Amino acid sequence: MQEITAQHFAERLARGAAQARAADLDALLVAPGPDLAYFADYLPPVTERLTMLVIPTEGEPTMILPVLEHDSAAATRAAGAIRLITWADGEDEHAPLVDQLWSGGRYGISDSAWALHLLALQHELPDVRFRAFSDVLPLLRAVKGADEIDRLAAAGAAADATFEDILSVPFAGRAEREVAADLGRLLREHGHSQVDFTIVGSGPNGANPHHEAGDRIIRQGDMVVLDFGGLMDGYGSDTTRTVHVGEPTDEEHEVFEVVKRAQQAAFDAVAVGVPLQEIDRTARAVIAEAGYGPYFVHRVGHGIGTTTHEPPYLVEGEEQPVVAGMCFSIEPGIYLPGRFGVRIEDIVVATADGAERLNNTSRELHLVR
Amino acid sequence: MQEITAQHFAERLARGAAQARAADLDALLVAPGPDLAYFADYLPPVTERLTMLVIPTEGEPTMILPVLEHDSAAATRAAGAIRLITWADGEDEHAPLVDQLWSGGRYGISDSAWALHLLALQHELPDVRFRAFSDVLPLLRAVKGADEIDRLAAAGAAADATFEDILSVPFAGRAEREVAADLGRLLREHGHSQVDFTIVGSGPNGANPHHEAGDRIIRQGDMVVLDFGGLMDGYGSDTTRTVHVGEPTDEEHEVFEVVKRAQQAAFDAVAVGVPLQEIDRTARAVIAEAGYGPYFVHRVGHGIGTTTHEPPYLVEGEEQPVVAGMCFSIEPGIYLPGRFGVRIEDIVVATADGAERLNNTSRELHLVR
Repeated sequence: MQEITAQHFAERLARGAAQARAADLDALLVAPGPDLAYFADYLPPVTERLTMLVIPTEGEPTMILPVLEHDSAAATRAAGAIRLITWADGEDEHAPLVDQLWSGGRYGISDSAWALHLLALQHELPDVRFRAFSDVLPLLRAVKGADEIDRLAAAGAAADATFEDILSVPFAGRAEREVAADLGRLLREHGHSQVDFTIVGSGPNGANPHHEAGDRIIRQGDMVVLDFGGLMDGYGSDTTRTVHVGEPTDEEHEVFEVVKRAQQAAFDAVAVGVPLQEIDRTARAVIAEAGYGPYFVHRVGHGIGTTTHEPPYLVEGEEQPVVAGMCFSIEPGIYLPGRFGVRIEDIVVATADGAERLNNTSRELHLVR
Repeated sequence: MQEITAQHFAERLARGAAQARAADLDALLVAPGPDLAYFADYLPPVTERLTMLVIPTEGEPTMILPVLEHDSAAATRAAGAIRLITWADGEDEHAPLVDQLWSGGRYGISDSAWALHLLALQHELPDVRFRAFSDVLPLLRAVKGADEIDRLAAAGAAADATFEDILSVPFAGRAEREVAADLGRLLREHGHSQVDFTIVGSGPNGANPHHEAGDRIIRQGDMVVLDFGGLMDGYGSDTTRTVHVGEPTDEEHEVFEVVKRAQQAAFDAVAVGVPLQEIDRTARAVIAEAGYGPYFVHRVGHGIGTTTHEPPYLVEGEEQPVVAGMCFSIEPGIYLPGRFGVRIEDIVVATADGAERLNNTSRELHLVR
């Protein structure tokens, strides 16, 4: 696997500055979270204390941060390319950040930056214009480098190994929560440093797409949606498979096959230049044609990188075209309220020739015990 | 332990509305995170999708949320008191929220609300004024009810049990990371549902207050700062003890005793009506008097509740007085760069008579092997 070096971060910072320039911004304000991990190799605890990286269109990237976190920030692979300015508890944390901005300026800011800090900046600099990254620079981190695709592939392989292992645990008679704990343990055993979600939606709970895992005891005859992922070596995994405890009914089998066809059709629709919403429409058409249109209640996918949910979004209204190097999920589903749900999800990377899956476990309906 | 019921959430919502009124606001906008857990018994995954609870000064609390999360939100203990309005992927998620607000209005908003959503609201409602909760209502959740103090005490007892157990694991010869993994495992074994931090700062790493845990192998003669906590039954724990591998030097012993005295002095300073900054000053004076003033580089404490860091902050400049029912950390430290650090932290609850500690392990210097 290609090492990620100081040079990669210097290039990301330069690319950030160039994108800011192209969007007619004066600088990017990068908040703790996946944006800061990407540009600064730095993942501080997200608290009320202000940490913000400023990437100006001209000049040196500068990070404002609490003095008590200085040593951690100085130890990253990106530290040589970023000037650090610290503030101490009891001081005005916003003053050193305001010093980096100018009246009349236009700034992009991380989607997840805290309202607390944005409002303080707006108060100090009333004639400055702020815009959220996903609004003004939706593709800022969307096209991945080879260094990143390597890691997304490794995280995907670890999630796949987790799925292979979970097939041999007992389902019937155990609470969803217990199977979720198995998924979390397996993700860690296969190398994940962080587990973000371990959804186990059995029977009627599977019809709630964001049901996590509860006390329901899984029974013979249940469909079970398993959707799990997290971070490994700084990059995300996210895969869904739906399994069945014992033999499925004809209807369960039919719904499963519709979702599988929709997922394949969406995958086949990925090509450089195709608007992202077309991939959503493709999956939706397959499901609608089979008569289940009202039961596919979410977009077909989202980007993935230094976090498990990020732009680009594969959703009606998103006219951005596919670019080679984009990594995103394809995850259609059908949710029959009070009964069961089916979802199948792979992470894929767009290539010059179409797409490659980073999840490669079988998409057939697995029977578990 | 007192059960937390629908009635508790109805009361919290009513209190939120009353506080908004008193602060001359038209409503509170409550974002996913500890604020939403407090008011709505609801902790959805924090993603780019908009979820926002509006608590108006008059009328029914209303939550805007993704349709695919409807069932989870409808299953909370607070659901009966909150109207749910859903939006679907591909729709304008901000429109139903904008419908709840009015031109010329004044709104408080969660500190941690995303810039993405705040900027969208400001764009749609240019003559509306937003202010962050910690700015306009710093005490919104600061005074805890008996139901909450019970849970903070239980979380504190679980953290204490974790500390007692960690004393018997080997330190010398193991990586900080391994001891951190032990702390995480023990917190879960003692009932935590979420581990937020497991700081193991050995030798010189202890002098970096927010060092987490790295590959450094702990050695005979090291001071080791252990700072750990997370959530149990929805409420936070956070405690720090500093241990020593083998016999300490006279200097190490002296520094430890200064921190211990500072922590006790700050604890003794807690009384209803005392400005919060006085508690910080009290600890700081003890440390300065001993000649270590420049090496205590952070505020003395922070509130704790449905998250492990929240208002009130015990910091120079915070003139709010102590109110009975406030729960916060008292955690002075001395950090000698390149050498070692010492920190001692308890969560305390302010009472009519002073304060009670929710962490009760010995504050002497423990020797480990």
